[in-house]
Amino acid sequence: MEQVQQWLEDVRGLDEKAMEAARQHQTRLTKPRGSLGRLEELAGRVAGITGQLHPEVMKKRIVLFAGDHGVAREGVSAYPREVTAQMIMNFLQGGAAINAVARAVGAEIEVVDIGVDADFPPAPGLVNRKIARGSANLAEGPAMSMDQAVAAMAVGGERAEVAVKNGVKLLGTGDMGIGNTTSSSALYAVFLNRTAGEVTGRGAGLDDEGLARKVQVVERALTVNRARLTDPLSILAALGGFEIAGLCGLIIAAARNRTPVVIDGFISSAAALVAIRLKPEIQRFCLFGHLSQERGHQLFFQEIGERPLLDLHLRLGEGTGAALAMSIIQAAIEVHNRMATFESAGVSDQEE
Amino acid sequence: MEQVQQWLEDVRGLDEKAMEAARQHQTRLTKPRGSLGRLEELAGRVAGITGQLHPEVMKKRIVLFAGDHGVAREGVSAYPREVTAQMIMNFLQGGAAINAVARAVGAEIEVVDIGVDADFPPAPGLVNRKIARGSANLAEGPAMSMDQAVAAMAVGGERAEVAVKNGVKLLGTGDMGIGNTTSSSALYAVFLNRTAGEVTGRGAGLDDEGLARKVQVVERALTVNRARLTDPLSILAALGGFEIAGLCGLIIAAARNRTPVVIDGFISSAAALVAIRLKPEIQRFCLFGHLSQERGHQLFFQEIGERPLLDLHLRLGEGTGAALAMSIIQAAIEVHNRMATFESAGVSDQEE
Repeated sequence: MEQVQQWLEDVRGLDEKAMEAARQHQTRLTKPRGSLGRLEELAGRVAGITGQLHPEVMKKRIVLFAGDHGVAREGVSAYPREVTAQMIMNFLQGGAAINAVARAVGAEIEVVDIGVDADFPPAPGLVNRKIARGSANLAEGPAMSMDQAVAAMAVGGERAEVAVKNGVKLLGTGDMGIGNTTSSSALYAVFLNRTAGEVTGRGAGLDDEGLARKVQVVERALTVNRARLTDPLSILAALGGFEIAGLCGLIIAAARNRTPVVIDGFISSAAALVAIRLKPEIQRFCLFGHLSQERGHQLFFQEIGERPLLDLHLRLGEGTGAALAMSIIQAAIEVHNRMATFESAGVSDQEE
Repeated sequence: MEQVQQWLEDVRGLDEKAMEAARQHQTRLTKPRGSLGRLEELAGRVAGITGQLHPEVMKKRIVLFAGDHGVAREGVSAYPREVTAQMIMNFLQGGAAINAVARAVGAEIEVVDIGVDADFPPAPGLVNRKIARGSANLAEGPAMSMDQAVAAMAVGGERAEVAVKNGVKLLGTGDMGIGNTTSSSALYAVFLNRTAGEVTGRGAGLDDEGLARKVQVVERALTVNRARLTDPLSILAALGGFEIAGLCGLIIAAARNRTPVVIDGFISSAAALVAIRLKPEIQRFCLFGHLSQERGHQLFFQEIGERPLLDLHLRLGEGTGAALAMSIIQAAIEVHNRMATFESAGVSDQEE
C-alpha cells in the first residue's frame, strides 16, 4: 500500500516547457503547419511526458496481464474459463493475435500470470506473479481483498519499473481473462455513474440471452458490493480482477517513470480509469490506442474527454489495439525527430 | 490511349472464392469471431484482390508523382509554386514527412517527376518522366491536352508494372504539386455533382480570403471547361494535372495486376475517382488509407460508400496517410497468415 501511495505521489504533470519546444520545432519542419494533425499532437504529448524535445520510442513492449475471474462461473462469457490458461500457452507459442500484431509493429510481449487458475512450466516471456488462482465471484462479494488488489498493483508497478530498466521507451497494456469484460463493466458503471445496461456489452460474443444475464450479474455485483464502493482502491478490489489491478499499477508506475503508456481497449481503459481517479495527472501519460466495439467504451472517452487514435472495430483485447497504435506513435516520433526544417532543406515557407 | 483502354479491359472483379476461403480461415483462428473487425475485412479484401488465401504484403512502395499546375498562378495556395521542385529535392534527401513515415513502416518511396517546372540531376529514387513543365491554367482552359493526360496515365501504369516486376506486393499513392487541391476540387465538383464551395478547402493553409478566391477559381474552371466535361478522361484532361493523371494510371494498372493499392488523401482520391468512373470494379482494389481534413474528402467517401482506415486529421499528402495505413494492413495480413487455429493451439472454441 505504501509503495503504491508513493508511486502516486511521485507522479508529476507533463513537462510544459518540452511540449512548447516540441510545438515550436514542428513549425519549422518542411510541411504546412498543423498538416500532420494528430501526429503533431502525439509528438508534443510524448515530449511532455518524457521531458525530451526529441524522445525515442523504438523499444516498445506490451505487458499482458492474465487472470481468472470467479464471475466466469455465472455464464457471462461465450468461452469456457479454461481458455484463459489455454491462451497463455498460445501467447508463449506465438500463435495469438497479439503475437502477430506485435511482430508486425516491432514490439516485445511480456506475459504476466497474475492470477490464472492453472500452473505453467517456466518459459521465456512468462513472468509468474500469481497472487491467487482467480478472483472471487464479484456477483457474490468482493472480487479481491484489499491486500490482494494492492499486491496486484505492485506487480504491475514492478513490471513497469523492469521495462524502464530494460530500456523500453513505449509501454502498452494487454489483458487476458475470461470474464473480465463483466468486471470492467461493473467498474465503468461505478466510475462513469451509469447503469449496468449502459456499459455492459457482448464481450467475446454473447447472444441476447447471455447479454441479459451478464447485465443482471453486473447489477448483482453492484448491489452486493455497495458498501465497499467508497474510494477508487476499494472499488477496484470489490469489482476488478487481478489483471485489471496489475494494469492499473503498470499505468501508475509508467507515469511515475515519465514513460508513455498506450492503453488498449475496454479492459485496459477500466484500469486506466481507476488510475486516473486515484490521480488525475496520470491521464496525460496515457495514449489511448483505439475505440473498442465493446459497449461502454465510447462513454469512457466522453467522460475523460479524449479521442482514441484508431477505430478499427476491434473487440479482442490482448493489447492488439495498443500494438497497432504503437506504429502510428512511432511514425509521429520519426516525423518529429527526423524531418528537415525549411531552413536546412532550402524550402520556401508560407510567410514568403 | 489504346494501352489505357487495354488496361481497363484487363481489370476483373475480386476473386470471390479466395475471399470466402479467407473468411472461413478467419473463423478458425484463436480469437472470437469478428473480434478483429476491420483487420479481418482487410485480410479478406486482400485475398480477393490477389486471389491468394495467404497473400504477402511485406514489400511496400509509395509511388509519389510530382507535377506543377498552371492554376498556381491564381494565388490558390499558401505556398509559392517553386515549393514543388524544392520538395522533390527534400524527398530525395530524405527530409520530408513521407520519408520519415515510410521509414517507420518499412515502405520504399519512388518519386516520379511527371510534370515539374524544374530540372533535376539524375538521382537514385527519382524517375524522370516529365511530360511538360507544369499543366496549363485550368481557370483559363484545359489543364492538359487529351494526349498529355493519356501519356501521364501511361506513365502511372508503367510505374505500377515496374513495381509489380520488382516484387512490390502493396502499392501506395503519393502526390506533390502546389495547386493540386484546386485541380482536385474541380474534379470532385464534377464527379460528385457538388458546388465548388462544397468541395474546396484550405489546402496547405489558405486564410478566408484565399479560400474565397480559390472557390472562384474552381467555379471559373468549371465554367470555362464546361463543354469538355463529357466523359471521365476528358474531365481528367480538362481539370486534372499530370500527377493526378499519373496516379489514375497507377491505380488502374494496380487493379489490372491484382495488387492492392493504398489510396492516400484528397488528391489521390480524386485520381481514384476518375479510375472508378472509368471502370467501377477498380474501387475494390483500392484500400482507402485515411480521411483528410481537406473539405470534400468526406463527401467522396459518402459517394463511394467506403470508410477510410484512419482519421488522424492529416492534410499533407505526399502519401503520408497511405504509408501509415500500410502498417495496419500489414498487421492484418500478419494476423491472417500467422495466427494459430483453435485446433493447432488446443484452445477451446465458443461452440464447446
